[in-house]
Amino acid sequence: MTRISDWDAERRARLVWGHLAEPGDGDAGALVAAVGAVEALRMLDRRRPAELDAQRWAAAVARWTPRRRGVDLDDQARRADAVGARFLVPGDEDWPCMADDLGAHAPLGLWVRGDATTLATDPMVAIVGARASTGYGEHVAAELAADLGGGGAGVVSGAAYGIDGTAHRAVLASGGRTVAVLAGGVDRVYPAGHAALIAEVARSGAVVSEVPLASVPTKWRFLARNRLIAAFAHATVVVEAGWRSGSLNTAAHAASLGRPLGAVPGPVTSAASAGCHRLLREFDATCVTCADDVREMLGFTDPALVADGAECEAANERRVLDALTRRTPRTSDDVAARSGLSVADAEATLGLLGLAGRVHRDADGWRAR
Amino acid sequence: MTRISDWDAERRARLVWGHLAEPGDGDAGALVAAVGAVEALRMLDRRRPAELDAQRWAAAVARWTPRRRGVDLDDQARRADAVGARFLVPGDEDWPCMADDLGAHAPLGLWVRGDATTLATDPMVAIVGARASTGYGEHVAAELAADLGGGGAGVVSGAAYGIDGTAHRAVLASGGRTVAVLAGGVDRVYPAGHAALIAEVARSGAVVSEVPLASVPTKWRFLARNRLIAAFAHATVVVEAGWRSGSLNTAAHAASLGRPLGAVPGPVTSAASAGCHRLLREFDATCVTCADDVREMLGFTDPALVADGAECEAANERRVLDALTRRTPRTSDDVAARSGLSVADAEATLGLLGLAGRVHRDADGWRAR
Repeated sequence: MTRISDWDAERRARLVWGHLAEPGDGDAGALVAAVGAVEALRMLDRRRPAELDAQRWAAAVARWTPRRRGVDLDDQARRADAVGARFLVPGDEDWPCMADDLGAHAPLGLWVRGDATTLATDPMVAIVGARASTGYGEHVAAELAADLGGGGAGVVSGAAYGIDGTAHRAVLASGGRTVAVLAGGVDRVYPAGHAALIAEVARSGAVVSEVPLASVPTKWRFLARNRLIAAFAHATVVVEAGWRSGSLNTAAHAASLGRPLGAVPGPVTSAASAGCHRLLREFDATCVTCADDVREMLGFTDPALVADGAECEAANERRVLDALTRRTPRTSDDVAARSGLSVADAEATLGLLGLAGRVHRDADGWRAR
Repeated sequence: MTRISDWDAERRARLVWGHLAEPGDGDAGALVAAVGAVEALRMLDRRRPAELDAQRWAAAVARWTPRRRGVDLDDQARRADAVGARFLVPGDEDWPCMADDLGAHAPLGLWVRGDATTLATDPMVAIVGARASTGYGEHVAAELAADLGGGGAGVVSGAAYGIDGTAHRAVLASGGRTVAVLAGGVDRVYPAGHAALIAEVARSGAVVSEVPLASVPTKWRFLARNRLIAAFAHATVVVEAGWRSGSLNTAAHAASLGRPLGAVPGPVTSAASAGCHRLLREFDATCVTCADDVREMLGFTDPALVADGAECEAANERRVLDALTRRTPRTSDDVAARSGLSVADAEATLGLLGLAGRVHRDADGWRAR
């Protein structure tokens, strides 16, 4: 049974702060980080410290104070018991330290249903995308999520209809670990149509939120939730996204955290891929076509971890390079014979090596650089 | 009537060099550039000049000399008349100067059927791709080619089945100008199934080759031809390409010439788009989704030249920036009201501006940077 009265004062105060401040409130985050949650609460009843800007402090106190009377810790305890939720704070063993990269916008605490250790899965990949997904996007999301999840990576997403839900489901089916980050309280499943899915995620993975139990998801909280998805993941992949999709917001957070950002291309005739193409064009996202591409984004270049296709490709390049010298030019037929590749493969590989600046050719043939 | 005997000696000598040296022969190119084609021919009969490397000179003379007996200028003249072909050399008004960026690998001369001024169309875009194209790729190639060609840009391609042929046809249908660069002689249409198309290109645009009339297309000449397609164009776009497509070779030439390179994404489930995704992933090609994206690659950012979508997008960004200040944070609802946009549009625009580092938000709302 959850006995909040037995918690240490700092943990309890952080829970209170979750009621007073909206997610990502930088003033609350900075204050709690500077003086601790207990002292920060005490300051609300005292004169402003001289170091703080008067106008800013007044505004912050004005938005926090009215919410103090709504804090009902007994209600939170009852609700936590009803869904088996735990409250995590920084310093807890299962606290996802990557969230601290958000600085003053880091969560003050996290409610978790399920296995909180899921949050520490390494690597963790965010797979997000449009609610208005297509069969193509769902196929790709499922393939990526099953491959990564089945291979031991965690997959974090937002439990929304469309790509998010497809990703969670595929990980579950693969026996992998998945985390759903909600914009409302972890006991307030949204969307309602995903109640069973969210319960399933809680059974084998984790359902997480920074807002108090029973909180409704608001627009602001959806945007703020997106920063947590990006922060919990070592890399973020957008599978389908319309020109103005909310997934672009998650992508923006990943980019601002300096985490690798990938986008899955699709037909240019599909509006559901327009946002992904925008990320590729304008924001230098990595083009993701398969799980190996994601593993590469994560820095896994160990040959044991890359699939046959890429291995085979690297082997071709190696064999072609072995067939070349810096001095003696060779025709592609000669290179093919020496490398044991077909002429078509040898030529294609030479072309790619040329593109990468590793070989060059003139009228006499090809040479290594 | 073509009277090669009336040509000046330099032009005639360049025509002869086209018989002696394979396309892109850097030794021939360097020699002709250094002493002129006439003098270069004379050198074949004399002792090697002291400046040249003995072994290299011997190898070059050994590959050029046997071909001298095959030069039949009367036959070239008859064939030129039969198809109405002209021989261009550097310095001619219609010579495509961009080809000279190939340096020692620049063509020594060009046979042109049709209107040679087509080669000087500015801007000129190369649209190339797989022979084994899909309906999707053909659709996109046709849209791009018709939009660019109809808008006054020239489109150069290789007259192959698949994407190349589709691009030529769409330009012709749009009333635009198109150039087909062949790997064999301009009177030796290849592929045979494109004889009518190539004739049509010659009627309103130009069919070009650097090899003598009647020459057969060889593998080497296809690869060499690809460098001309890239060199004739201000930008190259690959529409569909398999993992080992020859189009990647054209892309490599465009990149090595420092010209903008674009690739059209497609479904990651389509093998015909695998080469394009490779260009996006590994070679930093620009993601091309429409003709406007190509115009942007060409540097056309004049609002009069960009389509409604982009214009509208820029307007939204402007309006949102106008609704923000550096000091006062505003909620997205407030920004929407001030900018006159829907909340969804305002939020999407704020997200993109955030991604571009032009605005930032904290718990109080959004501010301009």
